[in-house]
Amino acid sequence: MRKIRYGMVGGGPGAFIGAVHRMAANLDGELELVAGAFSADAAKSAAQGAELGLDPGRVYASYTEMAAAEAALPGDERIEVVSIVTPNHLHFPVARAFLQAGIHVVCDKPLTTTIVDAEALVAMAVERDLLFCVTHNYTGYPMVKEARERIGAGAIGELRKVIVEYSQGWLSTLLEAEGQKQAEWRADPARAGISSALGDIGSHGHNLVEYVTGRRVTRVFGDLGTVVPGRTLEDDATVLLRMEGELRGVLLVSQIAQGERNHLRLRVYGSEGGIDWVQESPNRLRVTRPDGSEEILWRGGALSDSAAAHTRIPAGHPEGFIEAFANLYRNVARTLRARSEGREPSVTDLDFPGVEDGARGVRFIDAAVRSATLDGWVEMSEVGGG
Amino acid sequence: MRKIRYGMVGGGPGAFIGAVHRMAANLDGELELVAGAFSADAAKSAAQGAELGLDPGRVYASYTEMAAAEAALPGDERIEVVSIVTPNHLHFPVARAFLQAGIHVVCDKPLTTTIVDAEALVAMAVERDLLFCVTHNYTGYPMVKEARERIGAGAIGELRKVIVEYSQGWLSTLLEAEGQKQAEWRADPARAGISSALGDIGSHGHNLVEYVTGRRVTRVFGDLGTVVPGRTLEDDATVLLRMEGELRGVLLVSQIAQGERNHLRLRVYGSEGGIDWVQESPNRLRVTRPDGSEEILWRGGALSDSAAAHTRIPAGHPEGFIEAFANLYRNVARTLRARSEGREPSVTDLDFPGVEDGARGVRFIDAAVRSATLDGWVEMSEVGGG
Amino acid sequence: MRKIRYGMVGGGPGAFIGAVHRMAANLDGELELVAGAFSADAAKSAAQGAELGLDPGRVYASYTEMAAAEAALPGDERIEVVSIVTPNHLHFPVARAFLQAGIHVVCDKPLTTTIVDAEALVAMAVERDLLFCVTHNYTGYPMVKEARERIGAGAIGELRKVIVEYSQGWLSTLLEAEGQKQAEWRADPARAGISSALGDIGSHGHNLVEYVTGRRVTRVFGDLGTVVPGRTLEDDATVLLRMEGELRGVLLVSQIAQGERNHLRLRVYGSEGGIDWVQESPNRLRVTRPDGSEEILWRGGALSDSAAAHTRIPAGHPEGFIEAFANLYRNVARTLRARSEGREPSVTDLDFPGVEDGARGVRFIDAAVRSATLDGWVEMSEVGGG
Amino acid sequence: MRKIRYGMVGGGPGAFIGAVHRMAANLDGELELVAGAFSADAAKSAAQGAELGLDPGRVYASYTEMAAAEAALPGDERIEVVSIVTPNHLHFPVARAFLQAGIHVVCDKPLTTTIVDAEALVAMAVERDLLFCVTHNYTGYPMVKEARERIGAGAIGELRKVIVEYSQGWLSTLLEAEGQKQAEWRADPARAGISSALGDIGSHGHNLVEYVTGRRVTRVFGDLGTVVPGRTLEDDATVLLRMEGELRGVLLVSQIAQGERNHLRLRVYGSEGGIDWVQESPNRLRVTRPDGSEEILWRGGALSDSAAAHTRIPAGHPEGFIEAFANLYRNVARTLRARSEGREPSVTDLDFPGVEDGARGVRFIDAAVRSATLDGWVEMSEVGGG
Repeated sequence: MRKIRYGMVGGGPGAFIGAVHRMAANLDGELELVAGAFSADAAKSAAQGAELGLDPGRVYASYTEMAAAEAALPGDERIEVVSIVTPNHLHFPVARAFLQAGIHVVCDKPLTTTIVDAEALVAMAVERDLLFCVTHNYTGYPMVKEARERIGAGAIGELRKVIVEYSQGWLSTLLEAEGQKQAEWRADPARAGISSALGDIGSHGHNLVEYVTGRRVTRVFGDLGTVVPGRTLEDDATVLLRMEGELRGVLLVSQIAQGERNHLRLRVYGSEGGIDWVQESPNRLRVTRPDGSEEILWRGGALSDSAAAHTRIPAGHPEGFIEAFANLYRNVARTLRARSEGREPSVTDLDFPGVEDGARGVRFIDAAVRSATLDGWVEMSEVGGG
Repeated sequence: MRKIRYGMVGGGPGAFIGAVHRMAANLDGELELVAGAFSADAAKSAAQGAELGLDPGRVYASYTEMAAAEAALPGDERIEVVSIVTPNHLHFPVARAFLQAGIHVVCDKPLTTTIVDAEALVAMAVERDLLFCVTHNYTGYPMVKEARERIGAGAIGELRKVIVEYSQGWLSTLLEAEGQKQAEWRADPARAGISSALGDIGSHGHNLVEYVTGRRVTRVFGDLGTVVPGRTLEDDATVLLRMEGELRGVLLVSQIAQGERNHLRLRVYGSEGGIDWVQESPNRLRVTRPDGSEEILWRGGALSDSAAAHTRIPAGHPEGFIEAFANLYRNVARTLRARSEGREPSVTDLDFPGVEDGARGVRFIDAAVRSATLDGWVEMSEVGGG
Repeated sequence: MRKIRYGMVGGGPGAFIGAVHRMAANLDGELELVAGAFSADAAKSAAQGAELGLDPGRVYASYTEMAAAEAALPGDERIEVVSIVTPNHLHFPVARAFLQAGIHVVCDKPLTTTIVDAEALVAMAVERDLLFCVTHNYTGYPMVKEARERIGAGAIGELRKVIVEYSQGWLSTLLEAEGQKQAEWRADPARAGISSALGDIGSHGHNLVEYVTGRRVTRVFGDLGTVVPGRTLEDDATVLLRMEGELRGVLLVSQIAQGERNHLRLRVYGSEGGIDWVQESPNRLRVTRPDGSEEILWRGGALSDSAAAHTRIPAGHPEGFIEAFANLYRNVARTLRARSEGREPSVTDLDFPGVEDGARGVRFIDAAVRSATLDGWVEMSEVGGG
Repeated sequence: MRKIRYGMVGGGPGAFIGAVHRMAANLDGELELVAGAFSADAAKSAAQGAELGLDPGRVYASYTEMAAAEAALPGDERIEVVSIVTPNHLHFPVARAFLQAGIHVVCDKPLTTTIVDAEALVAMAVERDLLFCVTHNYTGYPMVKEARERIGAGAIGELRKVIVEYSQGWLSTLLEAEGQKQAEWRADPARAGISSALGDIGSHGHNLVEYVTGRRVTRVFGDLGTVVPGRTLEDDATVLLRMEGELRGVLLVSQIAQGERNHLRLRVYGSEGGIDWVQESPNRLRVTRPDGSEEILWRGGALSDSAAAHTRIPAGHPEGFIEAFANLYRNVARTLRARSEGREPSVTDLDFPGVEDGARGVRFIDAAVRSATLDGWVEMSEVGGG
């Protein structure tokens, strides 16, 4: 098995998500980090590269330099895929630069800060036939896949109601004014875009509910609020949803649910039962039944092929966030390996969120913000989606 | 200690809620059932009276007969309070009849099916100085009282967000067409009023959130849906809320959340922490804290005076729904006993939902339904509330 | 329906368990308290009687006086059954007095403090054909009955292992030296008997495991310890068990598991699955399955006739300790009513722990204590049981 | 940062634990797999090496060949540490071979199948000053470290009681007769040693309780049983414990707790509170308090330095089994790197179970088996421990 060579943009000293991407890529031993532009500060980038044991010649001070230099390397040396883990506003220019260089992309979410940019990336990726994964990582959890499989197979009957909630409390104070790096850029429209809570976590909820139900959001009513005084963007939102087939839904997000860590919970109720998944206990899937009893399914048990293919260890030995995230990287690596060997990737290999999913997330944020401004329902088709 | 004499209207053979009211009244041995009009069917009423060991002379075939007959009895024989456990549309005429007869009232919720009726009862109760309890029973749980006390004392800081959910699955099929008695009248506008889910369980959620926060709902946006084909009234609703002080909130109710039993959950987040209470595990109160740790408080532990005053047995021996319900009856009994003895009832004695609370619930239902019709926000003040 | 007249011995001001018995007897309205000797202190007894609204003529200063006076009343006036809620050492003389007076008995556990006394009560009850219920109340929970039904029906296959644990923390300090009444008598061999933890809560565990499995304990190895300095009786014990059919088991009890409230948990594993019940969440029964998934059953759902017959309200509205306790009283009342009407009581009516169950509990305590002294296994047959 | 070079013995196609060790070593990017003898079958070993992308010249057909060949390589090429993931009976000869070759060792548990062999390895490792890690991996969980820190700091007062349970159901049938590889060797005394349940999972329980309390087991009483007909070794055991300071304890293990996955739970009760940790929800630590309330601590929160140093991602994003396992590998790697750079390893670097811990586990198994044979308590000092 050949390891896939990848590079990283962002993820310098102290960045949370860059380290997560690297662990996710490490876990299965199917990728190898060989290059990076870890910071716009050359010294910091170099320090990070050294810490990671990289060849200093492939540690760059900027993504433009990196894209150019890597593209100039022989095909069996240069990175095959780049991982973009910068603040939101850089996703677009960085992704564009690497796509232009013919390099595949893994990009953090939200894909971009505007619909126009998102659509440009979709077009470029399609045109150049480059793989583009957006790390809506929660769909990498095996029990999320189990939920999707069951719903797809009709196990809970006709779908009737979805509730997706992602509540956090970490922005309960004006943390962005205290120099906390993560809070700072997320609260700054210039770097985060038009939204904070919806962009950062609402887009995950949106992706999760579309993935599991197999239906798209068609209409939204957004009730957005900025609760902490002094803050610019919304830190709390409830979005009423309609999905294909007039499926009713609600998405709740908050960054001011004081004390909550990452309370992401998805429920889907159908005519014959329901599913209930909570990210903080991800190895477990609760299935409700018409007689009021419940079934608790556990990762590693007798589950669907899809869940099994994204599971590494037996039931009762918990897997977590990194393993779910690693499923995206592993599938990207296998898809690239299949392509490089002239094979067709398997359905499992291709099971990761793509650029179109990412673009729909951007449209969703836009529609919810627009709805809040208009104080009325907005059709996704009005913002290019649906 | 003298037992308070009470009578019952409704609660004949097979009625769920009547039996609950009787057990609640029995539990503490502070009330005694001495009369009843248990059914509009005289034979059924008599049978129920016999089953309960009542004097046949005080088992009536109609509430009008009962009100008249009881009023004619000597003061130390006639019922002091009547318990009304009929379908919704009868609450008003029955309550009016007993108020006119000078008899105190305990009435199931929603108080009435129209705002006009609700306001008439408020006026009558006030004018005649009669006690009127509406059985929004969930506020009888000790841990709900603990939540209220803590919030009132500032334990979670400034309030920022409430989420109250009451999800059931029992109306996932068109049960009302199958002759199920409970479903039948709740689905019939002539008996249930303008709402099903909101009237039956949404009014509980509304009362709970007002009780615990000490704030009133001021503005609503209702998204109501009728999911099961063939049904007349809504069986699913999300209501966006604003409460006094521009407190943001959401109320979710459903009768088609297939497999859910009585998933009533209340969360209130403040600047310094949050509280989380789930009715199906009522002895437990989860308190979230800014550092992401949690405190789990248990009924019977070292809690507020209010929680302690509504608790019967030590921590670790669970109390449930009936005990919470009994707290309403016990407090009503003690208030009546105090009044009959010329004493001032204590704050604890008076801690039960009154006719004004019930009326606000009716206005809330009206406002939510109106909002859904208008597809816009409705101020509670527009419907007589706020 | 005629109410059964009962009297109470013990349960004066401040006594926890007397109040529980009264609420349990009140709940269903099938019994009526008409007499009592609530305290050996005549004034306290009278005060308690007044508080309960009893006829002062039937409030006694001693149980001997009460037994004599009640026996002298006409058959349709005197108490039909007495409830004994005194400290352990009085169970025997009180029960004997009432049995001699021809009055049925409900007695708290452990039945007596010696095997000889227990066997004397068994003999008297049998000889006089008097009903004798010992309040091993945990078997009154509907989900415990569901577990027994399932196991009896072979749902988990051949039984292989039982684990029963009852951990409390309330005696983590030398509470008995601080004048706490409950702790005081339980720690005093003259009143509690030869055991504290095993007598108070181990006897419940023993009863529960025998009830649910339908098998008797045949052999024990007791590891008893007195952890808190200054204490006389054991406050912590592990008892290795063998039950009929060489079923392996363990019983763990503690009064020094600091912070635990009433952590009573029963698990039974068989060849085809297992059951897991936790008293602090009593409405729920976890069923384990060979594939590692679980089923969660809820009281009020689609359960066995036995569970359903001991359930009052629908699933999702929790019942608790008092309701379970009330199941014993209700069944005793119905059995007595059937007998008084010349009918055969139903299987459900007879489903309460009897004097033989209580006697086996006493023998179990004795065998475990003896085993600890001998530091070896003790056969139940050596202490008259098995 | 230089990657530590490691090799592996065992872990060929289909082996569960070998893959876990490799993922654990991969996660943090601090080690690199460069050699292996993955199977006694040369073709299988080669296939596994190819699958892992190893240089075929360093994939061996036997561990003896591997030890010799690696020892002959230059110091900056040969493996620095070997990971032994074979069935139990090979741990000793393989470890001995690599220690003799001057190569550090990571070895799966139990260390050996006899005390003599265990002591020989202890002596060799000490004499040659070679690092020797035994993968009692559960102590790698951050919340286990938090428990140890709190207990060490006196947070729960004087220790009074420990309960450790590891229940599995996977051997509820005679799986070893059906050709299931994992079951086969564990059930075969020639490969597993004198014990099945105690050796496989009881040794983990023993290590966990000693690690968290900081005390050693001093005395045991073992109640071992072979429940499934046709089986040779015990599949269920309860071991009564005494630890230093006469601390009372119980260890429960089972492989026939039908339906349980890996129910490993540790509780320690002290005079001021208790801790409760469950491996299937490893990010959570329940702390009981004298007033009956509880505190729930979460990995990633405001915890001890030790917990924080073994945590990779924020609270609310779960870590699992692989991350805990990776903590052992990471610490071994850091210790080796420090040694190779002439630095003193930090306390954190050295926080992994050593050969002495492994040897104590072997003695514990021996003592428990001996106790069951003698039907009496056995002092650890009698088997060379204590």
